Amino acid sequence: MSLGRTPIHIHDAVNSVTKNVNVIDKETVQLSESHGRFIASDLVATMDVPIFTKSAMDGFAIRSEDSIEASRDNRVAFTVVVEVPAGSSSDYELKPFEAFRIMTGAEIPESADTVVMFEQTKETDDGFTIRRPFEKNENIAIQGEECKKGDVILTAGSYVNPGTVATLATFGISKVDVYKKPLVGILSTGNELLDVDDELERGKIRNSNTPMVAAQLERVGVDYTIYKLEKDELESLYNKVKVILEETDALITTGGVSVGDYDLLPAIYEQLGAEVLFNKVAMRPGSVTTVAKLGNKYLFGLSGNPSACYSGFELFVRPVMNLMTGSQRPFAPIIDATLAGDFTKPNPFTRFLRAELNFVNGVIEARPAGFNKSNAVTSIAESNGVVILPGGTRGFTTGDKVKVMLTDVVGGAVDFVVET
Amino acid sequence: MSLGRTPIHIHDAVNSVTKNVNVIDKETVQLSESHGRFIASDLVATMDVPIFTKSAMDGFAIRSEDSIEASRDNRVAFTVVVEVPAGSSSDYELKPFEAFRIMTGAEIPESADTVVMFEQTKETDDGFTIRRPFEKNENIAIQGEECKKGDVILTAGSYVNPGTVATLATFGISKVDVYKKPLVGILSTGNELLDVDDELERGKIRNSNTPMVAAQLERVGVDYTIYKLEKDELESLYNKVKVILEETDALITTGGVSVGDYDLLPAIYEQLGAEVLFNKVAMRPGSVTTVAKLGNKYLFGLSGNPSACYSGFELFVRPVMNLMTGSQRPFAPIIDATLAGDFTKPNPFTRFLRAELNFVNGVIEARPAGFNKSNAVTSIAESNGVVILPGGTRGFTTGDKVKVMLTDVVGGAVDFVVET
Repeated sequence: MSLGRTPIHIHDAVNSVTKNVNVIDKETVQLSESHGRFIASDLVATMDVPIFTKSAMDGFAIRSEDSIEASRDNRVAFTVVVEVPAGSSSDYELKPFEAFRIMTGAEIPESADTVVMFEQTKETDDGFTIRRPFEKNENIAIQGEECKKGDVILTAGSYVNPGTVATLATFGISKVDVYKKPLVGILSTGNELLDVDDELERGKIRNSNTPMVAAQLERVGVDYTIYKLEKDELESLYNKVKVILEETDALITTGGVSVGDYDLLPAIYEQLGAEVLFNKVAMRPGSVTTVAKLGNKYLFGLSGNPSACYSGFELFVRPVMNLMTGSQRPFAPIIDATLAGDFTKPNPFTRFLRAELNFVNGVIEARPAGFNKSNAVTSIAESNGVVILPGGTRGFTTGDKVKVMLTDVVGGAVDFVVET
Repeated sequence: MSLGRTPIHIHDAVNSVTKNVNVIDKETVQLSESHGRFIASDLVATMDVPIFTKSAMDGFAIRSEDSIEASRDNRVAFTVVVEVPAGSSSDYELKPFEAFRIMTGAEIPESADTVVMFEQTKETDDGFTIRRPFEKNENIAIQGEECKKGDVILTAGSYVNPGTVATLATFGISKVDVYKKPLVGILSTGNELLDVDDELERGKIRNSNTPMVAAQLERVGVDYTIYKLEKDELESLYNKVKVILEETDALITTGGVSVGDYDLLPAIYEQLGAEVLFNKVAMRPGSVTTVAKLGNKYLFGLSGNPSACYSGFELFVRPVMNLMTGSQRPFAPIIDATLAGDFTKPNPFTRFLRAELNFVNGVIEARPAGFNKSNAVTSIAESNGVVILPGGTRGFTTGDKVKVMLTDVVGGAVDFVVET
């Protein structure tokens, strides 16, 4: 089968898949279910924050005017008349040189306008003395200083992280409008593939791409259904793909997109009338990665090569999934790193390689997985990111500056060292 | 209440909580449930990888000896006799100048020892010609070159990321031994706290720390139970803490650890006979963060201040949770970043501040949340990391080199730019 494939630049490939992505739909979830989702409507403050003027410290609330004369040589004495714990308030009207004993977070009574911290006082029998004047509003958080009622706090598409959850709680939002998660179908092609539970047979290998892609989807918070192909031939594949596209929002296939004699997916795309966005990308591995679109539904044709499948997912599937889920920041962060290892053979194409990332003194050290064949399996199993090696006429050596895609932080750092 | 608190260094604090952490227990889960867990026993290869010698390319498998004479001026012709698709094999014995047509991943038949890629041939009526000699094993993946049966592939404590899932699948491991997740109790103290569903009352605020901490636990893959305190007084609190410690592996309290008059937790720790690891840390905010231990159970006393609560979790709770779950890399990555904003007021203590991290040209730009009070709520809601500002006599300005703790990558980058 001749396809007349022309490789496109990785930027063009990413742009073509990430433009015009439609979000799935909206739904309302409990606040406790909202972490990891993307909010579907702007959040407008329903109140000032803080909602009342409150003490930022444990101490004494006084009238600032009573402190004007205070100095080291002329300590001014106050009498404590009322206690105001957090959660309480007081309508007591302070007289000159009277004070409230007040806790952090408690409402500042009308008649006080500044707070003296415990540490700034010397205790007396019925109160305390101070040795300097206090200006209005010291150690006080003023009503509305962090946001005003009516301010737009979050825009649609914001990721709900733990800080966002706290903000939603502050405004009493127990039900949150979020975008629905897409449902993705996964289908691996290839007569050589056995299920994980199957006994090995001559010439066959266990299918590792399906569970890997499932975990990659799980990592970006997307639901999936795994489909199975009865027979790796055109009609069976066509019918299966039709069913999957009815039942899901996107289909990820692994294998079946190269120019091998038995690769059927290009024919399927044509039969479906799907628009092929690209079928060759100027990158290694995974140059034959194909993405097609039928209406709003995506057909990701990832390579059957596990490394190419992995990085193809991170490059193309991840941002589309995030965009379908409403994200404003769909891409994995790309960060400077230092190469750990020599890769002296030059390659004309940009390489996107699974890599083990280590975090050492603030610098990411990236060790591409599988380069050293003797421990390829271990290095693949421990890869927690993707290293980018630009194409060109020279190779790379240890210490070279490279960039990495950060796909995960849970498999984090072995130690904790900060400058203090 | 005088506690005689001596602040300890952040490194000492982190070391004291992260030493001698016991894993909870082991359990066996389905492969499809294993992503995000930590494996509980070494994984030893049950077979060679690749398990058979196979073609790394689509092309023709030949006897290398037949190609010796090939050159530009003397193309050598081969006849294709058998096709070997992926998943198949062939026992046919090649005669001189015969070839198998072979697909990527297919087993190399005994009688062939090198593979010529389609692109390296010129087609003929019954086969092809080549113009250079091929050495043994070109375009071939040799049995066992990536790992040998008996090799230790993964050690106990390895994080199960998508690449790990693929490796487990390759070895036919459909049930995976992993460490159990801890169950954590969350309890917020403070009479000023309302539930997210409650109507606001004078002097009170909604409890945002409990849902925030719940989301932080979820982010590190840990289960939790939320407890409620009927009355914020000593006996009620003591009884509640006793119950929680029976039902869970760790307790996180928020609030109640400062030196305010109504903070009861220090007395509870004493009454329980818990060993207080520290009750003051040389850091801001959250210097009063307390961690105690009763047997193997942790009592994290986080500050009621939301910023201090957030960073206290990331500094102390996150690594302990990861260690309890069996991780070998318990800490959030700490990476170089550039400060986005001026913070000219010096602070003698190291500050750990929630921050919005942006990824620009490979560099992380860190904007601490809440410094600019007028948009504090928004900046807190969008914070996706922790910035570390060392203590000292000078302030910080835009462009200063700082370090950040990366707590998340899902709220990722707005664009995709790589050097190619």
